[in-house]
Amino acid sequence: MNVSIGELKQMGREIHRLEQISALLGWDQETYMPVKAIGDRAEQQSLIQGIIHSKITDSGLGKVLNSLGADLESLDVKGDYSDTDRALIRHIARMYKKAVKLPKDLVERTAREESISQARWIDARRNSDFSIFAPHLKIILDLKRETADLLGYDDERYDALLDDYEPWMKTREIVEVFSKFQKELKEFIEKIKSSNTSIDDSFLYRDYDIEKQEAFGKEILNSMGYDFSRGRLDVSAHPFTTSLGYDDTRITTRYKKNNFKTGIFGIIHECGHGLYELGFPDKIRGTLLADGTSMGIHESQSRMWENIIGRSRSFWKTFFPKLKGYFPEALKGVSLDEFHRAVNAVLPSLIRVEADEVTYNMHIIIRFNLERRLLNEKLTVDELPEAWNHEYGTYLGIEPENDSEGVLQDIHWSGGMIGYFPTYTLGNLYAAQFYNTLKKEIPGLEAELEKGNLKIVLDWLREKIHRHGSVYSASDLCRMVTGESVNPGYFMSYLDNKYRHIYDL
Amino acid sequence: MNVSIGELKQMGREIHRLEQISALLGWDQETYMPVKAIGDRAEQQSLIQGIIHSKITDSGLGKVLNSLGADLESLDVKGDYSDTDRALIRHIARMYKKAVKLPKDLVERTAREESISQARWIDARRNSDFSIFAPHLKIILDLKRETADLLGYDDERYDALLDDYEPWMKTREIVEVFSKFQKELKEFIEKIKSSNTSIDDSFLYRDYDIEKQEAFGKEILNSMGYDFSRGRLDVSAHPFTTSLGYDDTRITTRYKKNNFKTGIFGIIHECGHGLYELGFPDKIRGTLLADGTSMGIHESQSRMWENIIGRSRSFWKTFFPKLKGYFPEALKGVSLDEFHRAVNAVLPSLIRVEADEVTYNMHIIIRFNLERRLLNEKLTVDELPEAWNHEYGTYLGIEPENDSEGVLQDIHWSGGMIGYFPTYTLGNLYAAQFYNTLKKEIPGLEAELEKGNLKIVLDWLREKIHRHGSVYSASDLCRMVTGESVNPGYFMSYLDNKYRHIYDL
Repeated sequence: MNVSIGELKQMGREIHRLEQISALLGWDQETYMPVKAIGDRAEQQSLIQGIIHSKITDSGLGKVLNSLGADLESLDVKGDYSDTDRALIRHIARMYKKAVKLPKDLVERTAREESISQARWIDARRNSDFSIFAPHLKIILDLKRETADLLGYDDERYDALLDDYEPWMKTREIVEVFSKFQKELKEFIEKIKSSNTSIDDSFLYRDYDIEKQEAFGKEILNSMGYDFSRGRLDVSAHPFTTSLGYDDTRITTRYKKNNFKTGIFGIIHECGHGLYELGFPDKIRGTLLADGTSMGIHESQSRMWENIIGRSRSFWKTFFPKLKGYFPEALKGVSLDEFHRAVNAVLPSLIRVEADEVTYNMHIIIRFNLERRLLNEKLTVDELPEAWNHEYGTYLGIEPENDSEGVLQDIHWSGGMIGYFPTYTLGNLYAAQFYNTLKKEIPGLEAELEKGNLKIVLDWLREKIHRHGSVYSASDLCRMVTGESVNPGYFMSYLDNKYRHIYDL
Repeated sequence: MNVSIGELKQMGREIHRLEQISALLGWDQETYMPVKAIGDRAEQQSLIQGIIHSKITDSGLGKVLNSLGADLESLDVKGDYSDTDRALIRHIARMYKKAVKLPKDLVERTAREESISQARWIDARRNSDFSIFAPHLKIILDLKRETADLLGYDDERYDALLDDYEPWMKTREIVEVFSKFQKELKEFIEKIKSSNTSIDDSFLYRDYDIEKQEAFGKEILNSMGYDFSRGRLDVSAHPFTTSLGYDDTRITTRYKKNNFKTGIFGIIHECGHGLYELGFPDKIRGTLLADGTSMGIHESQSRMWENIIGRSRSFWKTFFPKLKGYFPEALKGVSLDEFHRAVNAVLPSLIRVEADEVTYNMHIIIRFNLERRLLNEKLTVDELPEAWNHEYGTYLGIEPENDSEGVLQDIHWSGGMIGYFPTYTLGNLYAAQFYNTLKKEIPGLEAELEKGNLKIVLDWLREKIHRHGSVYSASDLCRMVTGESVNPGYFMSYLDNKYRHIYDL
């Protein structure tokens, strides 16, 4: 059989187009879909996922991969290819290898259930009633266990699911990274707690008109380089970013009138994701490589923008005066330094997405541990709310008063995203490590940021990270950019440097 | 081969689900899609249309149809079936028979071009520059000629395309209905022109805040029985209604600050379509019969609500006081009678969707004639703008000053909808004929309408028309409801009755 890589590209492109269509079905469900359409939507998602699965598992695709030199066991690719072409063959071979292990019926049932379960989760959260969501979570977990067992794994089930979000990484690597990190982080939180500094952030909870928040958010998006002719900003229950095309990456946020941080930092965070998706170069555009290489790397983008840039004093040097123009009343008498300290106040809290960047990682570690126990049947769904509350007591010293601000707060489990959470903390670690290199490579960075020149950051990210799409694995990319593997030391010294000033440590 | 109708239903349902997904791609393109995503969208539509085409032309489907007793030539169905099941078999057989004549490549190229052409049309209209759109219209016409020739026809190419919008109807039947009607209509317009009544409608062009228009529009939608848990109201360049699921029918309108009629009558019109799509009963829900039986019947719903109900004095008896509450300034000193006359003023004008219900039909007849000539190569695309202007001069006595208010005003040709226009006038005729029956069957109707009881109309439409979906053809349905075939006499006497008072004829 004599095939060209062009044939493979065409097959991959159709799969990518169908994934984009599925993304539109998802985006619409979260933003504009009428409530009673959920049954329709679940069936449509199931149908599209079934079609995608048929395309990926097509024996013709297997033959093309074979004849292009892909070893479907080791995923090595023999032949004289450019890095990009080799990566594409390997990428599709990996998809094929995984997909052929799953029966179409399982894929369709999973898609249907994830769609319905997500809608039930919204109900449950609104009513703060875990019992509405529990039966769906049970089904999701059964489906995920079935999936993991069919995919196979070396150490534990979690490996098989993690691989969807952080390809090539193993659970034990995460456990290894997290265990030392968790200890250092705990000590750091203690240090802050026992410092004598108290930060007044009460003005962040004054009256912030939502339309003005949106207008200010759009101003920041423009400065960050987000292109509205290739994207949009909408509102959803849970902020997210999604790509519906090579020129169509949309972000969402949610606003709270009496909490300035929710809307704006949501926007900066999602824009970080969006810039990654909109930054793939022509060389990989139109192929499946035009995608983030892992969710950890994706989160490194969103969290670098949200926290390292977006909560820096340099950033607000330019934007705080503008912000005061929007909200002169709420920010009356507040200085830049006071504002900067307020948006960086560290305080153990219940809601992950509103947590400060220090305690945030504790939220992740709690979820990572819980979802592993659920998957390994060491914890039942019925026991989950109590276990959740218990972990919050242990790790953060506080306990939720109801399920809405506890176990029901996140969308992930309802959407079948089990194995996703650790990528957030990986993202924080990658972000600090990347930023450490960035600072070295751009002398005078802070002065530029103080002038509002965010383009200098975007250009660097484009060149070092976005440009590669998913040509290189997350760990290869990390080594290419920073010279070493993921190392929590960078995050810890970033925290140290930053909070030393804020908390007078 | 022994198959059950259940198998056919399952196959039909998948096709319907894919059509709904295609409708979402279209809805999003018209409402929220970022401008540069048009290339992505065109490819996605092309892919989905190709998949739909493959499903319809699957030889397995042909065999199922055969073994269920469908004659794929005559489209007769032998066997002991309920009306509904027989109609479904026939409906799918008809789809199959047409689809197998078209190569997949043509279907994909057409979908891609329609998507792109629609975006270019928006550019062209914005710049009032026909030359931006002309090359795309040429491609569309070539594709449509190729399609019509492959589908085949008895009399003329137009038959093959018309059949997509008004199934089973022939061009010559329309010509026959229109020719007499056109003459009577022309005389009626003359009669109004030569009447001595002049209507002051200047207050309709005062300042109408768009947010308030929307709020008032939603109030009307609620009264009409539109269910927002199964639908939405959005804004688009060209108002439309689309079904994205059995519980998901969305409408759009567009607002003008200085023209009250545009937004609100657009809403009432589209709601008429929407109520039809949301009114299919459980018996046909989930099948391809859950669809309007023809665009003419669909338009009978929208135009009955927009014009016969929505421009009646009885309707405004309830809604005019509410409207005054929204716009006390603009409507200061305006009486119900003055308002009623103003929204019914008859005046030849350039824009179809803003035309009064009398001259409206002239706009249609002009388009019908022009698109037939284009299709039959008796008129070239380059000659079109001049021909358009000439027809407006002849039929309506006015000529557009630019292409935006002339040949570029409608979306249809850019979207490949050639053969669609005559269904608008058929809709007017069906609407008047249905309404004549409705009035006879509901004594005291006007008194109910004056009380704001619109449900009485919806209930009748549900029972007589919506309930049947596309089980019966348009002409069968018309006979079932009114006892005779489509007859323009009802529309003429409706006009006569109404305008006799308004213009003192």
